[in-house]
Order: sequence, then structure tokens, then C-alpha cells
Amino acid sequence: MSVVVRNINRVEQSVVDGYGKIGVATVHEAQGRKGLLASYMRPIYRPCHMAGPAVTCEVPPGDNWMIHVAVEMCKPGDVLVVAPTSPCEDGYFGDLLATSLKARGVKGLIIDAGIRDVKDLTEMGFPAWSKAVYAQGTVKETLANVNRPLVCANQLINPGDLIVADDDGVVVVRRGEAKDILEKSVSREEKEAKSRKRYVAGELGLDMYGWRQRLAEKGLKYVEGPED
Amino acid sequence: MSVVVRNINRVEQSVVDGYGKIGVATVHEAQGRKGLLASYMRPIYRPCHMAGPAVTCEVPPGDNWMIHVAVEMCKPGDVLVVAPTSPCEDGYFGDLLATSLKARGVKGLIIDAGIRDVKDLTEMGFPAWSKAVYAQGTVKETLANVNRPLVCANQLINPGDLIVADDDGVVVVRRGEAKDILEKSVSREEKEAKSRKRYVAGELGLDMYGWRQRLAEKGLKYVEGPED
Amino acid sequence: MSVVVRNINRVEQSVVDGYGKIGVATVHEAQGRKGLLASYMRPIYRPCHMAGPAVTCEVPPGDNWMIHVAVEMCKPGDVLVVAPTSPCEDGYFGDLLATSLKARGVKGLIIDAGIRDVKDLTEMGFPAWSKAVYAQGTVKETLANVNRPLVCANQLINPGDLIVADDDGVVVVRRGEAKDILEKSVSREEKEAKSRKRYVAGELGLDMYGWRQRLAEKGLKYVEGPED
Amino acid sequence: MSVVVRNINRVEQSVVDGYGKIGVATVHEAQGRKGLLASYMRPIYRPCHMAGPAVTCEVPPGDNWMIHVAVEMCKPGDVLVVAPTSPCEDGYFGDLLATSLKARGVKGLIIDAGIRDVKDLTEMGFPAWSKAVYAQGTVKETLANVNRPLVCANQLINPGDLIVADDDGVVVVRRGEAKDILEKSVSREEKEAKSRKRYVAGELGLDMYGWRQRLAEKGLKYVEGPED
Amino acid sequence: MSVVVRNINRVEQSVVDGYGKIGVATVHEAQGRKGLLASYMRPIYRPCHMAGPAVTCEVPPGDNWMIHVAVEMCKPGDVLVVAPTSPCEDGYFGDLLATSLKARGVKGLIIDAGIRDVKDLTEMGFPAWSKAVYAQGTVKETLANVNRPLVCANQLINPGDLIVADDDGVVVVRRGEAKDILEKSVSREEKEAKSRKRYVAGELGLDMYGWRQRLAEKGLKYVEGPED
Amino acid sequence: MSVVVRNINRVEQSVVDGYGKIGVATVHEAQGRKGLLASYMRPIYRPCHMAGPAVTCEVPPGDNWMIHVAVEMCKPGDVLVVAPTSPCEDGYFGDLLATSLKARGVKGLIIDAGIRDVKDLTEMGFPAWSKAVYAQGTVKETLANVNRPLVCANQLINPGDLIVADDDGVVVVRRGEAKDILEKSVSREEKEAKSRKRYVAGELGLDMYGWRQRLAEKGLKYVEGPED
Repeated sequence: MSVVVRNINRVEQSVVDGYGKIGVATVHEAQGRKGLLASYMRPIYRPCHMAGPAVTCEVPPGDNWMIHVAVEMCKPGDVLVVAPTSPCEDGYFGDLLATSLKARGVKGLIIDAGIRDVKDLTEMGFPAWSKAVYAQGTVKETLANVNRPLVCANQLINPGDLIVADDDGVVVVRRGEAKDILEKSVSREEKEAKSRKRYVAGELGLDMYGWRQRLAEKGLKYVEGPED
Repeated sequence: MSVVVRNINRVEQSVVDGYGKIGVATVHEAQGRKGLLASYMRPIYRPCHMAGPAVTCEVPPGDNWMIHVAVEMCKPGDVLVVAPTSPCEDGYFGDLLATSLKARGVKGLIIDAGIRDVKDLTEMGFPAWSKAVYAQGTVKETLANVNRPLVCANQLINPGDLIVADDDGVVVVRRGEAKDILEKSVSREEKEAKSRKRYVAGELGLDMYGWRQRLAEKGLKYVEGPED
Repeated sequence: MSVVVRNINRVEQSVVDGYGKIGVATVHEAQGRKGLLASYMRPIYRPCHMAGPAVTCEVPPGDNWMIHVAVEMCKPGDVLVVAPTSPCEDGYFGDLLATSLKARGVKGLIIDAGIRDVKDLTEMGFPAWSKAVYAQGTVKETLANVNRPLVCANQLINPGDLIVADDDGVVVVRRGEAKDILEKSVSREEKEAKSRKRYVAGELGLDMYGWRQRLAEKGLKYVEGPED
Repeated sequence: MSVVVRNINRVEQSVVDGYGKIGVATVHEAQGRKGLLASYMRPIYRPCHMAGPAVTCEVPPGDNWMIHVAVEMCKPGDVLVVAPTSPCEDGYFGDLLATSLKARGVKGLIIDAGIRDVKDLTEMGFPAWSKAVYAQGTVKETLANVNRPLVCANQLINPGDLIVADDDGVVVVRRGEAKDILEKSVSREEKEAKSRKRYVAGELGLDMYGWRQRLAEKGLKYVEGPED
Repeated sequence: MSVVVRNINRVEQSVVDGYGKIGVATVHEAQGRKGLLASYMRPIYRPCHMAGPAVTCEVPPGDNWMIHVAVEMCKPGDVLVVAPTSPCEDGYFGDLLATSLKARGVKGLIIDAGIRDVKDLTEMGFPAWSKAVYAQGTVKETLANVNRPLVCANQLINPGDLIVADDDGVVVVRRGEAKDILEKSVSREEKEAKSRKRYVAGELGLDMYGWRQRLAEKGLKYVEGPED
Repeated sequence: MSVVVRNINRVEQSVVDGYGKIGVATVHEAQGRKGLLASYMRPIYRPCHMAGPAVTCEVPPGDNWMIHVAVEMCKPGDVLVVAPTSPCEDGYFGDLLATSLKARGVKGLIIDAGIRDVKDLTEMGFPAWSKAVYAQGTVKETLANVNRPLVCANQLINPGDLIVADDDGVVVVRRGEAKDILEKSVSREEKEAKSRKRYVAGELGLDMYGWRQRLAEKGLKYVEGPED
């Protein structure tokens, strides 16, 4: 039996707004280096950035019918997350679905499969992260679940979890941790801004973080030249 | 023995012209979801689009001599299709060959191997779809066939078949089917233009195509919330 | 024991300057088709070009501490070359390290692993060639060597060797051969410029290089049509 | 903070015993074609089969310290499931750890990374399914979680869930569903045993399942020969 | 529209019999180094060898219905060749289909996708060459063609063409060329048997084939030691 | 210009003999976790083990002529190491070359490319580690170097260096370090034999190595159950 869950608990909008300028690498560090989707998830155009709660959609291999079902579950600001139940690089998603999602205010797409019409999506400014770009179309025959937890590109994603995506890839933040991680991310960015100024001025990380002694203790040895 | 076929039956120019604005995904759907080259065939720059009859050229691994032979067989509007007889990522093709092909009015290149000088090709506006970008050069020692049927990126391509390529990848249309598929493609695009307007207006695919009943019959169940 | 070599013999600056406009494919040909790093080494933005002596830095899997050590060994004009001791796609390098290297006049990065903050690096104009783009961060726990010979993307690179990188990939030239290869590269480019003019004028490679007879001797046969 | 959970709720032993001769493909079908780990998870020797509750163990890239912690949490009949927090092919596991696990009655190992000493493990009869075989060793520096839910080879695995593995790969069954799926698997095997007899006797699937009419309705057409 | 061709022209049985002990590498050489399927096509057990005419079967992604249709088209001695219309690693084929094919005297399977129940197939002695081993099952919803030419693992295969497969992989021989290639293969094996004796006796290929002069002419230089 | 070096300095035979029962993983640990070839280097049969000095042989893509040249440079006990100058999966090596090498007392082959006739090699007991098994043959046209340092599967290998290979993969030991690493390997094996006995007796690594306190200091926390 396949199920569509109509109402999900989304991460709060005020929290999502805070992620407007936070990059994926910062979020990943702030939450203890976890939550990153596989490195094969690449954006169709660059630069790009988005953040929003996940609407999750399973799809059978070579069958995109459930994406149409999932569209109706999306609200403004959402991010649609699609994962096939078996590995597949078919082009599940193209400009018509993007148009439909954009009309509903959806921010973008994360899909652990193929995507097509990437020229149109680029012109529309509808960002998408995918495993492949492939024109191979799909059928509409088989059911699957919408708004159930799923695994996408090696990460568990629950409906309503926060998705942040940019040029570096895609990260998921648990709904209940999003506020805390936002604070840590902002604080991290402020700290990095200070470090950046010192780096610009020519200071070295070795001195900035006081690592010289620890390196020496671990046994790092400097020699003058190749002949030493 | 290696053979070069001088005269091939090309898809008609008036038909080719009709494909000027038709995307690969549309062609692929219009001909019943077949004919698509492997998803690893990527354009060297984007956006891009071309259509034209195939001149086919086999190459031995690490040897691009036959491409020079194939150049002479090309006419204005042609697309050169190159496939190695054994998997190879070497850079068979660079700016000099591109210059030579451009001087003959060739539209672009499809190569199931590596390509190089991509900065020059981008500046020249000579589009190419390849398996890899790699500066590794080749020798000129061994013969192979020109204008014989070949398999390129998992698709059979006959000389004179129509090639259509864009940001989404590459599709081949049999010469004898190109006119019929063009009509189907145009009709498909018109239909999609209408659908697009309805999507823009916020209509859902579920309603547009009347899928709600069929989904219910297949057993799709909606629940209100995660706790249901 | 891990070692950092302070002084290395760099390829001469006047020689490096000569490579300012020489492409990777030309260098690769000029030195007898050798020295090319694996084709998976791709630039984070295009177009791009750089040349400079290598500072080499090994890193343990998932640990970027030694990159901070290597930064101090870099001088203006250098190229930092990083290779993990075990295959790893983690994002070892981001905008802070790029800022630090840029402040020291380093030209760019070659890394046989992942990189992150690619939007920032693109905006800064700091070129980098990597195996992956991945936000996954690293720790700072374990030592490795700096300015020792290493294997990066299947090529041996010695400290002070010349690195040339562009849209096509990355090539290494031995320090002692760099001057000779520069002359051969320049001479090759001059020769290619002449060929290019002839190609533009419509001349064929078959005639330009007098290959028709050799092809015939090897057994190439021309037939008029598919029915022959 | 890293956590080790001492007590987990394991799938019942009587249920596990029932899976003693049930293959992975049967389980996968019986639970509605879900729960299968990625196809790159291959056994180190064949034939092989095991079933048991999962003890889950996260490991940092290139660091196998936590496996030693996880060993203590294992009870007779358990299956140890290891997943790195970042993709890694290092050889986390060898004959000493296998000896230790075998001494505790552990049935085998599932690891989304590399394994080594496969000759010893084969001789010991300790089955293991891994992403790679690689002698590259690891360090013991960094903490991670034991007996927390994790994603292994693209599937979510909770501590105590049932793991079944054989020559075809690895499947996970939720603890609460294991009894029901066992019944369905057994019933499926009985049904298949009957079908097998009919297949042996030369009967066709087309007739056995009455598909001829449905195929005709969908439009399947038989022609006599290639010239038709 | 999908089509099943009932009668195909098979390579003659007396010719097939001749290939009973000829290896794939020999066939490949004998026909001018062509016809080899991609190197990812691996046998499920070793050693193995088979030869027979191809019955070709397209399958949609994740749907194995047409294999049941193809079974009926198979005669004793045939080899079933299956290729998906879009790349797919699902386990299309298991022990029930193998039982059915074996009952009809089919020699084995070539499938450019996944296979399952490999333990059973190994015990039955039913050889199969596949792209993957994966327990992921398939549905029965969509039509495709049987006994039409198809591309399988980058090679064109016509119904009735000869398939030869062993531990090294899979090769296709055109039906009309099979007799000629058999003679060349046998003659090649006889020649190799003679060479083998000379190799066993310690003779070198350099002397056996008289290559020393040609190597010298091409510029090969021998030096006594590393310091030369 | 291509060069063949006749005399190389081989690691001493008495040292090689010592490695007769030492596994690759042990060697790799003993020399500080370095020297391992890429994980895609797999043996053609298992179990297997060999050790011996390297004779190194470069080959052009798709051309195995130089292997015949290298055969003459091999002495009893040697290991032939072959690497293509550009990535290639062709089957460079088959049963005739194996026969020739075996007649000369060569122990086995390491090749960063394809191999064929693996059934024959298995029957002969000639071990080989390769990147691929592929029947695709090669030509004999182009020169390359023999007994020069080369990069094979991402490791630098000098002529005369020690190669050790088994079921786990392949490791290189510098000639000058082989004696020292042997001692460390033997000592490591003795230590592991003692540990193995304690593991067999049920002792835990945590206690054997006294790690409990260090884990606690790093912050590892044990909780009783999932509800904690």
C-alpha cells in the first residue's frame, strides 16, 4: 500500500529565513560534520543557493507518476526531495513539472536520479540538484509513498526536515535541530569573517590557531632542503 | 580491410531545419522513448543545440588518424559522430580539427571518448558532446571505417541518421523516421505549450490529466498526518 | 616520522613566465605525450589557466591539517599540489585556505580529493582543479609530509616541478625539462598557428600532411556508396 | 558527543531462525521490494548466507576505533553493521577483529567501506559483505556512535533490525515487521517451489500466470519472421 | 507498438558446435578485434563457456515481463540476450526463469542489467553474464520488442547472431560470418598451440616473430644500467 | 626515445624469501600505511600470494609490444609490472605471454589495465592482478620504456622494488627498505599471533590495548538503552 501524508510538521519559516545566506559547508560543520548527501549530487547551474523544508517523494525506477502527486503536497517555500526505490538515472523531471512547482512557490528540487530540460530550468531560475542529466523519459504506472522518511543520496530525510543546497552540494538538518544549528552556523560565519581578515593580512593558520607546538609534539620535523 | 564510404543518404535538409528548436527530451518522447545516447555524453559548454545528419567515424584506441579522413566526407550541416573500437578517454579532437570542420560548415561533434582544447572550442562556438575532457593526445597509425554503422555510447548510429543534441544529451533518429518524428515532436511541443500555460496558472497535473481516480484504483491512500 | 622540507629547487621564474599562454594539450604533446594527471581532475570554473612550481603536500584521509603547514612553505607564484594517502573525496579545502594562499601570492590549487566553498573561490578568482566538489569537512589530527615527491591523480610530482593547468586538465613537467619543453611548446604553437590558417582556408589535413599515400599503402579503400 | 547504546531491542531469535534458508531476493519481494542495500555490497566469498539482528556502528573516515567499541555490544547471533560518516574504501576490518567477533558468536559483517585479510576470513568461515577489498589500514583517533540508526549503502538501518545476506547482496527488515515478512517469505518460497516444478516440466510463465490476454490488450503483436 | 518475431534465421548448428572449445579472446582476434561486449559484463561463476544463436529481448527499466515472452521464442541451444531500454541494475532474472529456460534447452543468459539467485544458478549450472548482481526485483507492466536487433553492452546484436562467452567476457559474431570466423579461430588456435610449445621451451616472442630489427628501426635503445 | 634498461638492482633474494608468508595488509602497516596500489587492482583467482622484485614496463594504449621486450629482461623470481601511458582496459596479456614468463621463472603479473585468457592462467597457476578482465586485444606498433620508474595504479614503482600481492591487493616496498620492513612485518605478525590467541579466548581489544580510559577522555558516553 502506498501512502500520501497531507500534513507534515515543517521547520519554522523564521528559522528557514535565517539560512538565506548560509552555505552548505558551514551548516555541515555547525552540525558536527553530518547530514551531507553524496558528492554526486550536483546543481544544474551555478551559482545557486536555497533553503526550505523537505516534501519527500519516493519514485519507482523509470516512473515519475508520484512526483505529480507530491506537487499537490508542496507549499510556498518548500523543497521537493525525490528518491527512486532502486538506482535509476532516468530523467524524471523536466520543465513542465518545474513550471508547476514554481507556480506553487516551491524553491527547488533535490533528486537522486536524472533530470532533463536543464536549459529551460536554468532560464526559469529553478534550481535543481541531481545525480545525472539525462533526457530518458519515464512512465506513469506505479505507486510509491509521499511524505514518508526516505534515504536520498545516502542520507535519511524526514518530511519537514530542512534542506540547504548550494554550489557545494546538499545538506539535511533535522527539523528539531534547525534553530540550534542556525545559531551555530551564524556564529561560525562571524568567527570565519574575523579569521578571513587575518588571513587576508597574511597571518598563518599555524599561528592563528597556535598549532606549532602540537605539531612538534606529534613529531613533525622541518628540514632545510631535499639533501637533508 | 578498412573502408570509407563517400556517398551516404542523408536525412533531408528541410526535415533537419524543422528540428532547429526541438529539444532532445521532446524528440526522445516523440519517438517512443528510444535512441538516447548514454548519460555520460555531456556538452563542453551550455546552452547548446544542434541537429544534422551523421557522418560516422570509427577510431582505434589512442589513434585519431581516421578523423582526418572523415573530415573530407563531411558536408555543410553535417554532424561528425566518432566512436572508438575499444573504450578510451584520450583527447582525440582539438581546436585544429574543429577549425577544419567549421571551415566545411559542420555543425558539431559527438564523440564517445575524450576531447581537448575545450576553451578554444567554446570561444569558436563549435559545440561538442563527449565522454571526457582530457588533454591526452593520440597517434596516427591505424585504419578504421568511415560512414559505416557504428555503436556510439550504447546506440546504433547509421550514416545519414539524424542527430539532435542539446544541454540534456544526444539522441539519434533513423533517417527514414525523421520526418514523422518531427511532426510528432512539433505536435508534442504545441501540446506542452498549452499544458505549460495551465501549469503556470496553478493547475495540477493530477487534474489536468484526470489521474485521481486511477491513482485511487491502484490503491493510493491519503492520510492527514504523520500520526495516522 | 613526517617531514617538511623548507627549501626546494623551483623551476626558474623566467621559464614559468613563458608558459603564461601555453595550453595543457600543447605541453603534453611537446613533452612526448606524458605527464598528464587523470581525467577526473576538473577545474571548479572555466575558462582558467595557470602555471607555476609545485609545493607538494600529502594529507591523511579526512584530515587537512598538513595543508596549513604547507601554506607556510608557499612563495608567490607557487602552485599547491595536495594528494591524500588513501583515496578520499572529502572537502579538504575551502575559502579560508584560499584566502590565506592568495595572500601569499599562490596561483592556485591541484587536489586529488574534494574541495568546497567553490562559489567563493570562483568569486575570488582562485582557480582549483579537484577530483570532487564536496562540503564534507575534515579534522586536524594526523601528520604527513610536505615537499616530498608524491603521486597525484596517477602522476609522480616532485617539489619544484612545473604544473600547468587549464580547462583541459593538469600536466606536470619535470623541473629540469621545463625550459626545453617551453621551447618545444612555443615552436609547436607557431606551427599550429600556421596550420590553423590553412584549415580556416579549407585545406584538409590529408593534403597538408601528405597522408593520402600512406593511408592507401596501409589498405584504406574508398567506395562510392553504401551499396558498394 | 558520541554515544554507545548498551541495550537494544533485537528481533526475536525464533524469528531469526526462520530465516535460516530464506534468500535475500525472496525477502525483498516478500516485503514489497524494499530494504535492499546498494548493489556494490558484495560478499568476500561464495556461497554464503546469514541472518541476524543488527548492531550498528558509525566510523569516521580512515578510523576503525569504534569497531572495537562495537564488538563489546555484540551478542551471539548478531550481525555487525558498519558505515563510515564519509565515503571511504579503507580496509577497516581484518582477521583480528573477525577473530574477536567470532569468539563472541557474531554471525558476520556488513560494511559500507573496505575490508582486508579476506583470505583469512574465508578460511575462518567468517562471512562479510563490503564495498571494497583494500589493505589500506586505519587509525584509532576519533569517536562516533554505536547502536544509533545509520544509513548503510543507501538504506536506513536501526539497531536490532534484521539483516539477511547471501550471494545476491544484503537486505534489511524492520524489527517489528520481521515476523510478518518471514511468513510471507515462507509462503512465497512454497509457491515458488510449485512453480518451479511446472517450469521444470516445460510449462511457460505466459500460461502459468495467464498473461497472454493482458499482453495482447496492451498491444503486443507477434509476426512470423524478420521480413514481416 | 511492440513486436515479437517468431522465426529468426539462426547461425547453423554445425557451425555453433565448432565453437565448443574456442575462447572469446580467440574469436575476437579472428574477426579483426571487433564484436566484444563491454568489460563490465562478468560471468556469475567461473570457469564457464558457451556458444549459441541469440534470441534478443528488450526490457523496460525495472520490468522483466518481456523475458517471459522471450522464453517461448527460445529453442534448444539458444542464448538469451537481454538489454534494458534505459540503464538499470535491477535483478531482472532469477532461478525460476533459469529453470524455465533450462527446461527448453537454452544454454545461458547475457543481460546488460542485474541478475539474482546466483547461488541457485551456480548450483544448476546455468551460466549467465551480467552487469550486476542485485536482488532488486522488477514489475510486469510494460511491453518491448523480442527478436529485433538491439544494443547490449555497447554492441549491436541481431537475432540469430552467434554469441560466444567465457571467463573473459562476451563476443558477438554476425550470423553470416560465423563459419568463416570459426575457420580463422581454429587456424589461430593451431598456430597458437605451436607458439605455446616454443614459449614453453623458453623461446622469446622477440625471436619467434623476428621483431628485434623492427624495434631497432623504430628507435628502441638498450642501455646496460640505470646510470647509463 | 624509448629505452630498455638491461640491468637493474633487485631487492636481495634472501629478503624476498622472507616475505613468503607475509600478507599485503601486514606489509602495508609495517611500512607506515603507504605503498598500496589502488583498490581496483584485483587478483584473477583466489587464494593467491607472491613476492618478488619488479621489472617495470610501460605500454601505449591498446599496444602490448613492449611486454614482449620486457619478458627478456625478466629473471627467475621477478614480478612483471605493466602500466599504460593512458588509461586503458584492453586485454594486453594472455596465456602465451604467461607461458613465456612462466618458462623464465617469473612469479606473476601486476597490470594497471585489462587481462585475458584468465581461465588458462588460473589452470596454469600463474597469478595476476589487474584493473579489468577483458578479451579486447592489442596491436604491436609503438615503443615505450622498460625498467624505468613508472606510476602503476597510483603508486610510484622503481625497477627492482619489492612487490607483494595477495587476495587483499598489491603493495610496493622500496628496495632499500625491504629488509627493514621485513623485520617489522615479522615482528608485527608475531605480535598479532599473540593478540589472536587472546581474541580467541574472548578478550576484548578495549581491554587488551587499554583504550577504555582514552575513549572516556575523548568524551565517549555509554547509555543503557534507546530511550536514554
